[in-house]
Amino acid sequence: MTPISRITYRRRVQFAETDASGIVHFTNFFRYVEEAEHALWRAAGISIAERDAEIGWPRVAASFQFKRPLRFEDQFEVDLVVAEITGKTIRYSAVLRKDAELAAEGSLTIICVRRRPGEPIRATDIPPHIRSRFAVAD
Amino acid sequence: MTPISRITYRRRVQFAETDASGIVHFTNFFRYVEEAEHALWRAAGISIAERDAEIGWPRVAASFQFKRPLRFEDQFEVDLVVAEITGKTIRYSAVLRKDAELAAEGSLTIICVRRRPGEPIRATDIPPHIRSRFAVAD
Amino acid sequence: MTPISRITYRRRVQFAETDASGIVHFTNFFRYVEEAEHALWRAAGISIAERDAEIGWPRVAASFQFKRPLRFEDQFEVDLVVAEITGKTIRYSAVLRKDAELAAEGSLTIICVRRRPGEPIRATDIPPHIRSRFAVAD
Amino acid sequence: MTPISRITYRRRVQFAETDASGIVHFTNFFRYVEEAEHALWRAAGISIAERDAEIGWPRVAASFQFKRPLRFEDQFEVDLVVAEITGKTIRYSAVLRKDAELAAEGSLTIICVRRRPGEPIRATDIPPHIRSRFAVAD
Repeated sequence: MTPISRITYRRRVQFAETDASGIVHFTNFFRYVEEAEHALWRAAGISIAERDAEIGWPRVAASFQFKRPLRFEDQFEVDLVVAEITGKTIRYSAVLRKDAELAAEGSLTIICVRRRPGEPIRATDIPPHIRSRFAVAD
Repeated sequence: MTPISRITYRRRVQFAETDASGIVHFTNFFRYVEEAEHALWRAAGISIAERDAEIGWPRVAASFQFKRPLRFEDQFEVDLVVAEITGKTIRYSAVLRKDAELAAEGSLTIICVRRRPGEPIRATDIPPHIRSRFAVAD
Repeated sequence: MTPISRITYRRRVQFAETDASGIVHFTNFFRYVEEAEHALWRAAGISIAERDAEIGWPRVAASFQFKRPLRFEDQFEVDLVVAEITGKTIRYSAVLRKDAELAAEGSLTIICVRRRPGEPIRATDIPPHIRSRFAVAD
Repeated sequence: MTPISRITYRRRVQFAETDASGIVHFTNFFRYVEEAEHALWRAAGISIAERDAEIGWPRVAASFQFKRPLRFEDQFEVDLVVAEITGKTIRYSAVLRKDAELAAEGSLTIICVRRRPGEPIRATDIPPHIRSRFAVAD
């Protein structure tokens, strides 16, 4: 299987995602990026959250710059790109567009952790069977 | 400790809870009731979700009738009452008021389940040390 | 255009919709039903929330009975049916299934209101151009 | 009234804010900061979203670095500080702590816009009666 480095995720704004100013509440942009991330992992043939998995992927950093509002029923796309992979972390870049116009751009960094009952969560090296599925985009 | 049968939970509407029609999105009323429920359990000296607990409390039924909208920064209260306790379930009634006016009334039923690794979730009797904390309201 | 009386809406559980008990938080079932409702309206050729529309559709009642939990990445479908139409209200019935197994069933009632600047919201008859798009299911 | 430059906002984690990995879903940290922001405005004697106001405050940038997870029923505080004010924008810095330990730190930038029916949203100078309520923290 060829390593994957990007995905385009298509979505429609749902009513519950809007707020009283009439536009998508800004926190939902972070949800959209995470949904795109999980679609990327599925496209890579794996799930980011297997049941009872020892490995987990908490977020260590997230940021967005908002350029144009999205509204109820708008259709938009998230272009998610693997921007950097280190021993323990993956950083994605994301661009949201509606009708080819930039709506927002952001970044999300996740870290690989090991969770064992009774032990504190600790950062760990990305397992090879996961690392091999992804490649940094050009 | 006297068994507890009701609580009044006070809250302010947050902006993220509103939608593009300018009022609180209806799904948040169910959140408010659940917040009141967890406040009731804390007032009873226990947590409804201890870490690594074998016992869990999924919801089996939830309903609301909406009478008056709530808006950003409105202050309201949830009157939550223990309406019925059976061997395995607890049913609450809830009334939301703003400035003494009825905003919504609803009902929430939860069931006690046992979760063991590798086994399906199954309904179980409410443990006595939990049952003894609650009493059905008059 | 033939009046519409039902829709099957397909969806995948997103991670942000789960809670610490490992399953979909119950409030999201109400979101799923509303998403199906809005898909039904789009299938009828209209939007339930046109920008700057005088007519709005607050929810007056919502209920669910939960039978089986949904988990991250589960694929499920919402069968939404127009169950009753009165002069001012529409009531839907909804059944959620995963792999043909019942996950939850519920009901949602909405009311047609008129909103004018400086006036209180008041219930109003469903306009004929909207009423004609829907039919009660057999 | 003395201009305000910071607030400490106290909060408890609600169950609906957790996800299947057992911790607060990262998007809720952005909600917490926004709640603190609105508490700051109330402390300054104003609301950030008056009904029918011509002025609005969309977010133009938001970022967080996550250091320690928060869990159900954790009590934490958000220290929100006015970090910068320009002619049209306000930037806040935020630090979240639980038991005096750093949980996350972030930044939020908002812009003042004018919304008139039938016109596009456009950036505008912060009105003096709002500007005078806030001061940049030392």
